[in-house]
Amino acid sequence: MADPCRIAGYSGRLEGTAELVSSNTVHAIGIDIGGTKIAGALVSEGGEIVAEERVATQAGDSQAIIDAVVSMVERLAAGREVEAAGVAAPGFIDADQSTVYYTPNISWRNEPLREHLLARLELDITIDNDANAAGWAEFSFGAGRGVADMTMLTIGTGVGGAIVTRGGLFRGGFGAGAELGHLRVVPDGLPCGCGARGCIEQYGSGRALLRMANEIADVGGIGLALADARREHGELDGELVGGLIATGDPGAVRALEQLGHWLGQACASLSAVLDPQLFVFGGGVAVAGDLLLDPVREAYRQHLPAKGYHPEPDFMIAELVNNAGVVGAADLARIHARARRGAPE
Amino acid sequence: MADPCRIAGYSGRLEGTAELVSSNTVHAIGIDIGGTKIAGALVSEGGEIVAEERVATQAGDSQAIIDAVVSMVERLAAGREVEAAGVAAPGFIDADQSTVYYTPNISWRNEPLREHLLARLELDITIDNDANAAGWAEFSFGAGRGVADMTMLTIGTGVGGAIVTRGGLFRGGFGAGAELGHLRVVPDGLPCGCGARGCIEQYGSGRALLRMANEIADVGGIGLALADARREHGELDGELVGGLIATGDPGAVRALEQLGHWLGQACASLSAVLDPQLFVFGGGVAVAGDLLLDPVREAYRQHLPAKGYHPEPDFMIAELVNNAGVVGAADLARIHARARRGAPE
Repeated sequence: MADPCRIAGYSGRLEGTAELVSSNTVHAIGIDIGGTKIAGALVSEGGEIVAEERVATQAGDSQAIIDAVVSMVERLAAGREVEAAGVAAPGFIDADQSTVYYTPNISWRNEPLREHLLARLELDITIDNDANAAGWAEFSFGAGRGVADMTMLTIGTGVGGAIVTRGGLFRGGFGAGAELGHLRVVPDGLPCGCGARGCIEQYGSGRALLRMANEIADVGGIGLALADARREHGELDGELVGGLIATGDPGAVRALEQLGHWLGQACASLSAVLDPQLFVFGGGVAVAGDLLLDPVREAYRQHLPAKGYHPEPDFMIAELVNNAGVVGAADLARIHARARRGAPE
Repeated sequence: MADPCRIAGYSGRLEGTAELVSSNTVHAIGIDIGGTKIAGALVSEGGEIVAEERVATQAGDSQAIIDAVVSMVERLAAGREVEAAGVAAPGFIDADQSTVYYTPNISWRNEPLREHLLARLELDITIDNDANAAGWAEFSFGAGRGVADMTMLTIGTGVGGAIVTRGGLFRGGFGAGAELGHLRVVPDGLPCGCGARGCIEQYGSGRALLRMANEIADVGGIGLALADARREHGELDGELVGGLIATGDPGAVRALEQLGHWLGQACASLSAVLDPQLFVFGGGVAVAGDLLLDPVREAYRQHLPAKGYHPEPDFMIAELVNNAGVVGAADLARIHARARRGAPE
C-alpha cells in the first residue's frame, strides 16, 4: 500500500518554490506508452488536460522506456500538486495491475512495472492496459457519459477493446479480459500477430484497412485513385487512404465499408456476450465518423442474434480520440490512489 | 419493493399448523421453467435441496405456465418458512429482472412475469435467465467455488451461458448478456433458431451432437454402430448417442470430439473477451466428462490468442448438473430479497 502522506504531500521538484496550488486543483498524471511514442499529460479531476508532452518510444529498450516515463512524470509534476500517476501500456497487465505479462511491440515479459516506477517516483502509481484507459476516459468524460454498460473498440494499427459494466471496467479473472481484437471472426482465417488465426484485428484494424485498400487498388475500376496514390507515394498509408475517404473516393470508401461490415459482425457477436447499451469506436480510423458507423450498424443489424426481441445498443464515435489514453490513465490512477488511502472516489 | 414483513412472516398454507421451522432454517424456493418441464425445489441456505417436484410445461399456454408456477411455489412453501422465490426462464430477461422480453419455446413476449407472480404470491420474487441461475449455482455451490471469474456453458438442446465476474453475475446493459450460445463461430454458417447464422449453438449443442452423429452414421466405417442404432430405433437421440459414447464406440466418441473442438475454439475466443479463471461445462452433454473436456482443452490451446503470455483457465464439468437451475434461482432470489429489504446477504 502507498503511504497516503507521500501522496498528499507530494511535491516533486516543488521544494523551495511557493507555487503550491490550492487543494481543490489537485491533478493526476496520465502516461500512455505506445509503440512509437510515449504521451503524458497532467489531467484535472474533470478530465481536462492542463499540460502535455510526447517523446518517441525506444521500443526495444525496456530501461529507456522506464527512464522516459519517470522523467516525464517528474516534469509534469514539477510545481504542481499531484495525487497519482497512471501508466497505460499495450498488452496484458496482471489482475493486480502491477506486472506487464506481455507487450507485443515492447520487450516486456513479466515486467514488474509498478514496482520499478514506485521505486523511483514518490507517487501512487497505477498500471493499466492502454485500451482500458481509453475506454475509461470515454466512459467518464466522452461518448459514454450517462451509460452504465459500454463496449469500446479502438481501431488503430490493431484493434483494442474495453468493457465497462455497471460503471466499472471489466478486467477478467487474470486481468487480460476485453482483448476484443482477438475475438475470432473467421475459422482458419488470416494469421494474427497473437499467434492465432482469424482474429477481428485482421479484418477490422487500420492495418486491415490498408490491406483492403491495396486489394481494391489492384483490381482497377473504383480502385484507380488508390492505385494512383500508391504509385505516386510508393505505398498506401493511413493518411493517403484517409485523405481519399475524406474526398469520397469510391475505392477508399469501399475499403472502409468492408472494414465496417466486419466490425459490425463482430459487434453482433459481442452483443450476445456483453449486451452493452453503447458501442464506442475510437482510434485513428474512427475519425471517419458515419462513413465507418453506417456500415457497422448495417452489418450489426443483419447479423444480430434474436434481432427485435430485446433493446439494441447505440453506436458512437469516441470524443477524446487522441487524448483518451492519458486522460483515462490519470483518472484510473486517481481512483485507485483514493481507494488505497481509503478516501472517497 | 417487497414488504419485509410479508417475506419474514410468509406462511403460505401454514395457517393453523404448528410445523414452524426455526429461524435458522429459512428456505428459498427455486423454479426452473424449461421447454418440456417445470422443476421446482425448496432450497436451504447452503444450496441443499429439501424438497422438489416437476410438472410438464404446457409450452403454448402462458397462463397455464404461470398457474403451474404459482401452485408449485404454494405446495413447496406449505408448512415451511420461506423468504423468497426465484423463477428461472429461458430467453431474455430485462435489466430490472421483471419482464421476459422473449422466450424461444414459450409464447412470452414482453411478459411482466414478476408482476404477475407478485400479484398471486405473498413472497419476494426474482426472475432470472435459466443459464444465469445454473451458472450462479455452480459458482456458489458447485465447480466454481473459490473462483471469482467463471464462465459457464450449458450444453443441452442448445447452448446457454453465464458469466460470473468478481463474484457477481454479469448481465449486460439490457440484461441479455451472456447469451454465449450465440457467439458466432462461422461466418455465413449454419442457420440458428435466433435468426442469425454460424452461432456456436449450431456446432456445440446437444442438437449439434446428434447432427454430427448422424453424419458419421451416414458414412459407414467408425459410424457402423451409430447407423445400427439409428436403424433399430428409427432415429438417433441423446440417450442412444450417450450410451454409445459410454461404451467407447469410436463413431460416437468422434462426434463428441468434433463438438468439443468447436467448444474449445469458442472458449479461446471467449477468453480474449472474458478471460475467466475457469470454464465450467454443464447440461446433459457434460455428463461425458473428460471425453468432452479433453478435446475442448486441446482445441482451446490450439486457438488461444497470445498463448503462453498470460495464465490459462481451468476447465471443469458442472457438479449440480440437473439441479443447478433450481438451486441458483433460489439463491439469487434469497440474495435479491435480502438486498431489497436491506438485510445482509
